Amino acid sequence: MIAIDWGTSSFRAYRLAGDGAVIERRATGRGILTVEAGGFPAVLDAAIGDWAAAGERRVVLGGMVGSRQGWVEAPYVDCPAGAPEIAAAMLRLDWQSALGVEAWLAPGLVCRGEGGVPDVMRGEEVQILGALGMLANRSGLVCLPGTHSKWARVRDGWIESFATHMTGEVFAVLRHHSILGRLMPDGDAAISDERWFAAGLRRAAEPGGLLHHLFGVRARGLMGEIPAEGLADYLSGILIGHELSNAPRQPDGSDPADPIYVAGSAELSARYLFALQLTGRPAVPLDPDAAAAGLFSLAAHLEGERIP
Amino acid sequence: MIAIDWGTSSFRAYRLAGDGAVIERRATGRGILTVEAGGFPAVLDAAIGDWAAAGERRVVLGGMVGSRQGWVEAPYVDCPAGAPEIAAAMLRLDWQSALGVEAWLAPGLVCRGEGGVPDVMRGEEVQILGALGMLANRSGLVCLPGTHSKWARVRDGWIESFATHMTGEVFAVLRHHSILGRLMPDGDAAISDERWFAAGLRRAAEPGGLLHHLFGVRARGLMGEIPAEGLADYLSGILIGHELSNAPRQPDGSDPADPIYVAGSAELSARYLFALQLTGRPAVPLDPDAAAAGLFSLAAHLEGERIP
Repeated sequence: MIAIDWGTSSFRAYRLAGDGAVIERRATGRGILTVEAGGFPAVLDAAIGDWAAAGERRVVLGGMVGSRQGWVEAPYVDCPAGAPEIAAAMLRLDWQSALGVEAWLAPGLVCRGEGGVPDVMRGEEVQILGALGMLANRSGLVCLPGTHSKWARVRDGWIESFATHMTGEVFAVLRHHSILGRLMPDGDAAISDERWFAAGLRRAAEPGGLLHHLFGVRARGLMGEIPAEGLADYLSGILIGHELSNAPRQPDGSDPADPIYVAGSAELSARYLFALQLTGRPAVPLDPDAAAAGLFSLAAHLEGERIP
Repeated sequence: MIAIDWGTSSFRAYRLAGDGAVIERRATGRGILTVEAGGFPAVLDAAIGDWAAAGERRVVLGGMVGSRQGWVEAPYVDCPAGAPEIAAAMLRLDWQSALGVEAWLAPGLVCRGEGGVPDVMRGEEVQILGALGMLANRSGLVCLPGTHSKWARVRDGWIESFATHMTGEVFAVLRHHSILGRLMPDGDAAISDERWFAAGLRRAAEPGGLLHHLFGVRARGLMGEIPAEGLADYLSGILIGHELSNAPRQPDGSDPADPIYVAGSAELSARYLFALQLTGRPAVPLDPDAAAAGLFSLAAHLEGERIP
């Protein structure tokens, strides 16, 4: 089968063997924001045509491709939910592919947090399902850092609840559109100086609140206390520090020695693992191909229940 | 004399009588960001030429015009500081005006907050000095909402300490550059629906942290719980609520019945007064022309100490 993790700004395709092993992987920049309405089938055909020609007949898609801005909207499934509940809500795409494949679209999840306020995810749920085998007792706290970081509490293979923090996007808009970015040199977001990242993490633990701590990035820059090259790291540390101190805790009754499971890009995961380590919370990285494994597990449920 | 409150995006000029009363006021859009290096004298000449021709000989300027991006940088003065300390650090501009006026530039203030992190202000200090007469015992907590909201603790006419919250700028970048703005209709920032502003204030008091609460703006919009027209108010309420719950408290030993003094634009002050009222904290608005009175009080110190 073919698994597609199709997000806002990325497209990742996996060709999987009958046991779920990855035979081949490819990635393009054709995130859904680059695709015009009606253009999704053509992008998919172009991306996996050779795999279909080689005999693959089923495609399972997850991520923002199932959002209102995607191919077609797959309604959210309520938490708690595991692979069976998510698979039961998958949509079969009404699509006459020249390739002769059938395509299934995974839904997102919705949960109700503190105060009854809703939270949503699309795409992270398949990463979590794919990582279940790495979690002790298929349970634990999973952190998926990113533009919109997700923190999910998982028990016995079920995603019980989750919370989103807009950390990555707030960093990006402040870096590129606020006065804080003016003192920073251009450059990538990799940790250039752990010292200033750590200083930001420590700052986040002090009183004053995030909106006050943010201004300190400017003030310390103006006063020459932090060099221009360190300001983005300091800002990143402040934001991630605030995320970590407000993120959900381990599920009740879990072993305090259980690690926090971190699944994200190599660079972001490194930042979060460093930050968690600094605050004395054990953390381990998850397989970056977890999305493929999650889509494979959803397909298995389709096999059992939906396909004659 | 002539008092100029020259900020990042605004220019306000006041012609003052010998007792400090405002004879005439005018405002232009010539904030310092619109002025090229070297262009400040010409902008000033154009703005107040007729007043100089009518006999005014002294101009006192405050605000971002004294920053690195302004006319010339006037170094920060350490807190605590009152009018005498600020006046003693004013710069006389080396400027041969065709108008025959002399011009003095007010410095900004720097203080050290929690953890020794510096904070800075430029322009708000003259507003505070100008409002001292309205404060009980020339003491109290002054809130100056804006792009960078300032909270200052004042005692016996001295600005003891202050803290900046980036509330206004964070609102603007999220509104215009993040995914949160996509669900919002275009329009101004006036309170269109107090209900959603109040809902945001209440949300800020719940657990989860600001970065999580921000994502709730999107999730509640997606779920149809808040109409598109209410989302900017809800976001504003979340941000101002977080600011209020983390802002400095009244100075030690002050009367708990003392109000919080709020000095800002009419629209922003209304938002903050509403929010403070909702949380049961007494608050009163200050004179919007306080900057002119503050610059007048600085000029009085110049008279006594610096001018032969």
